[in-house]
Amino acid sequence: MEISSLQKARYEYQPKLPAALDSAISDIRVELGDPTESVADQDQVKSLFPHSYGAPIAVFASGKGKTSQNPLRVGVILSGGQAPGGHNVITGLYDGLKKANSQSNLVGFLGGPSGLMDNDFIVFDDAKIDAFRNTGGFDIIGSGRTKIETDEQFAAALNTAKEQKLDAVVVIGGDDSNTNAALLAEYFKDNGTDIQVIGVPKTIDGDLKNEYIETSFGFDTAVKTYSELIGNIMRDANSAKKYWHFIKLMGRSASHIALEAALQTHPNVAIISEEVAEKKKSLNQIVEEIANVVRHRSDNGENFGIALIPEGLIEFIPEMKTLISELNDLLAHDEKYFATLKSFEDQAEFAVSKLSDHSAKVFSSLPRGIRQQLLLDRDPHGNVQVSLIDTEKLLIEMVGELLAQWKAQGNFSGSFKALAHFFGYEGRCAFPSNFDADYTYSLGYTAFLLIANGLTGYLSSVRNLDKPASEWVAGGIPLTMMMNMEQRHGKMKPVIRKALVELDGAPFKEFSSKRDDWAKNTRYFFPGAIQYYGPAEVCDQPTITLKLERSGK
Amino acid sequence: MEISSLQKARYEYQPKLPAALDSAISDIRVELGDPTESVADQDQVKSLFPHSYGAPIAVFASGKGKTSQNPLRVGVILSGGQAPGGHNVITGLYDGLKKANSQSNLVGFLGGPSGLMDNDFIVFDDAKIDAFRNTGGFDIIGSGRTKIETDEQFAAALNTAKEQKLDAVVVIGGDDSNTNAALLAEYFKDNGTDIQVIGVPKTIDGDLKNEYIETSFGFDTAVKTYSELIGNIMRDANSAKKYWHFIKLMGRSASHIALEAALQTHPNVAIISEEVAEKKKSLNQIVEEIANVVRHRSDNGENFGIALIPEGLIEFIPEMKTLISELNDLLAHDEKYFATLKSFEDQAEFAVSKLSDHSAKVFSSLPRGIRQQLLLDRDPHGNVQVSLIDTEKLLIEMVGELLAQWKAQGNFSGSFKALAHFFGYEGRCAFPSNFDADYTYSLGYTAFLLIANGLTGYLSSVRNLDKPASEWVAGGIPLTMMMNMEQRHGKMKPVIRKALVELDGAPFKEFSSKRDDWAKNTRYFFPGAIQYYGPAEVCDQPTITLKLERSGK
Repeated sequence: MEISSLQKARYEYQPKLPAALDSAISDIRVELGDPTESVADQDQVKSLFPHSYGAPIAVFASGKGKTSQNPLRVGVILSGGQAPGGHNVITGLYDGLKKANSQSNLVGFLGGPSGLMDNDFIVFDDAKIDAFRNTGGFDIIGSGRTKIETDEQFAAALNTAKEQKLDAVVVIGGDDSNTNAALLAEYFKDNGTDIQVIGVPKTIDGDLKNEYIETSFGFDTAVKTYSELIGNIMRDANSAKKYWHFIKLMGRSASHIALEAALQTHPNVAIISEEVAEKKKSLNQIVEEIANVVRHRSDNGENFGIALIPEGLIEFIPEMKTLISELNDLLAHDEKYFATLKSFEDQAEFAVSKLSDHSAKVFSSLPRGIRQQLLLDRDPHGNVQVSLIDTEKLLIEMVGELLAQWKAQGNFSGSFKALAHFFGYEGRCAFPSNFDADYTYSLGYTAFLLIANGLTGYLSSVRNLDKPASEWVAGGIPLTMMMNMEQRHGKMKPVIRKALVELDGAPFKEFSSKRDDWAKNTRYFFPGAIQYYGPAEVCDQPTITLKLERSGK
Repeated sequence: MEISSLQKARYEYQPKLPAALDSAISDIRVELGDPTESVADQDQVKSLFPHSYGAPIAVFASGKGKTSQNPLRVGVILSGGQAPGGHNVITGLYDGLKKANSQSNLVGFLGGPSGLMDNDFIVFDDAKIDAFRNTGGFDIIGSGRTKIETDEQFAAALNTAKEQKLDAVVVIGGDDSNTNAALLAEYFKDNGTDIQVIGVPKTIDGDLKNEYIETSFGFDTAVKTYSELIGNIMRDANSAKKYWHFIKLMGRSASHIALEAALQTHPNVAIISEEVAEKKKSLNQIVEEIANVVRHRSDNGENFGIALIPEGLIEFIPEMKTLISELNDLLAHDEKYFATLKSFEDQAEFAVSKLSDHSAKVFSSLPRGIRQQLLLDRDPHGNVQVSLIDTEKLLIEMVGELLAQWKAQGNFSGSFKALAHFFGYEGRCAFPSNFDADYTYSLGYTAFLLIANGLTGYLSSVRNLDKPASEWVAGGIPLTMMMNMEQRHGKMKPVIRKALVELDGAPFKEFSSKRDDWAKNTRYFFPGAIQYYGPAEVCDQPTITLKLERSGK
């Protein structure tokens, strides 16, 4: 296989481990704390996890321990969307297993959770592992979005685990996948087996974090890749001085990526969905706020700027959320009649006639292209596909219309030419930053230690991440500890609570203290491409979000 | 000013110079060759440049020379679109001037050529220069696209040069701007002044090159930035295994960027406009070729892929070129009547009635969105704005329709889900790669040497670029040598010949020998982010295009 010179160089990189893990396996011991409780709904969660609820927090420290060095057979799954560092979780896990006992084996299930249910697998060897060290992507075994949900699916997973004679399964995934891992751990116990399950916190979106999980892996690399591009575009905007760039950023519901990218680059506008919801802003309010920044900058002679838009924005605007919900209902209810309407105009007229007054007004105020997307682009369940809505173009169009009105009224004399971008796929498979390479390798190594210490239903945890890697603290957090009950498809389910941007958190406070200055003035910051070699202050810094959240801790 | 840690680190980078330039000014001497001729139309070009035609090629070598060390006052302009390294041309020029005589001054004209005509300027000092060393962007003095064309404009430029008491003007720009530089050099001589003009070859598009100009600056960094993103998306596609990504790349008419990006990343499809024109391909042929690759990969179970599309494609498809030309004519001719047509359907019907039969057929075969762009998005001169046509979306839609037909006929059983990207602004202002940082600094330093040796009407030239910087050869090429006569706005004008991709050149041959393999198999190559520190094979390599073109020379 031909590989790039960077990939070849990255093979030689030795990820850093926490000091306590960087010694002989026999010199690592586990310290267990007091029993734990779930973050909410304790009684219900406890009743659903009778075997695994209440386990103690585990921390690994230096000292003679009882970590098993018997041969183990462990399975691993990559679940959900790609995040930089996934390969290093696997290499860390593999290296831990092999260091303890060269007879141990790591089994990779192909294509996500379905690989576990279908027993579709490979067994890793050194050559395979070495070809993926410190690389991006999930292509080592592929990923998938199938969930283990039904009784049959749980039984199939157990069947494979027994057939494979697995001691443990490691699930690398986001909040949903780790909820799944918790259920699987409980199921395995409930069925009288000793097969352990360990989760690893993955997602570029950054929404899997809490008091004990300081960040999910991949967030660091993805947001730095987007920030590189945003910084480059800022420099272009400030050189050419003629365009506004509206940049939509991946991140699903939460705005962590948009917020961190804003802290990294200092845009003129960055919308945070959680604030929009909290302040119950309307779409027109958001449009007016942006238009005001455009006008203010134009008054200063600067007819250019940068606006960051989080992917999930639409669903956080209360009136849009209502509109989408009403559209989903009416399209489901009148599906057949709707399908007989051939022209968009007829469809739009019908929709307006069925919507509530306010929703009809909101719908009619939207540009034609967006109304078309709302009516036509539906998923297999008939629902509006919110993630496909070009929010960045919607805002450009509406801001442009408002500014044209202001111009006609003599209230705006500048020019507004805007370009749209959407960054997502560009960052999910980048070579992991040194931070993510070190963090994921440590998470994988820690997953091995949790297994070799007989624990199950835990999330691999590496903390103290704002310090050098040698000072990181490795351990495990009981998955049930992060759970609460939430409604899913009409039923109450135990799930890991998703972390949205907190408006009283340090990162948002930092942003909101600076944004007026950034709006009016040009304070662009150019992070440049991720560097893997060179001065530590260039190569080894965690995200600003992480540093701010950890400051004072 | 707050700056990023990478920017701080890059300030410390000392760009490499050719060995002959890396010594005392008095130890550099110029060697002049025989008189030169223009590449074509010698008599006409000669008659238009009586004062500057036929000058010899200049090369700088080690040895006692007559480089002036008197104080000089030099003006500099950034012209046209941004390209990484522009700042280093200025720092190299500044350092050369100051090294020879600390009393020399460098004047920066603001906002492009208009700054020279309006005498809008700053005088550089160490603090200003040091804040921009090795950075991307043109924000140090801004750029602009105004051209010096009319008699009044030439007179205004001369007036400023006299008022400023300039010894020379350095024009950093692409083919058009350097044609302008040649005219300005001639004009200054024709008006009895000794004010010199030196050009510097800039453009990310890579279309300003010839026997003596191995590459324009910025191409290296821009295409490496795009290749980083393409590689990341490839890894994502190969991990998720569910999307085709159609990626349009900047580069104006020429396909150098798409070709180099293809060589860097090994996509399944890369269209080269020059080949489309040479083989007189129709839009439907291109669509069918792509659909065949999709089908072939799907038959191998791979319902994903990457297609690279050069920005200028549309105009290289003969039937589209004809269509656009006919539309421009009819929209100009029937402008008023056309404006009375309110619905798109009426406009389209009218257009079809006026087009030639073949163009009407082509027009009608296009997706609605593209037909709208062709009819509605016109520039101030009433012309179709080809650069705004979403070629990548056009191809996705047409390939999708063809595959749906094939599916209905039982000739395709896979799935085709595609996403569109456009990369351009992401790369024009990146921190220059080490190659571009060294190359541009050397070009700026060489521009100073050309001035201090009394030369005018030259393009700064640094050659032998596939070798280490110490072996580079610096000198100057007479601008008239690169010229021929071409029709512009109905008149024959002397212009620098634009370099398109040559189908018998080594880069295209390399690509065409590999593309069938890349189409069928998954040979993705992941270059990763540009590295400024680390092993030389990662940090200091020129483009593959440059290496191939230079191999054997």
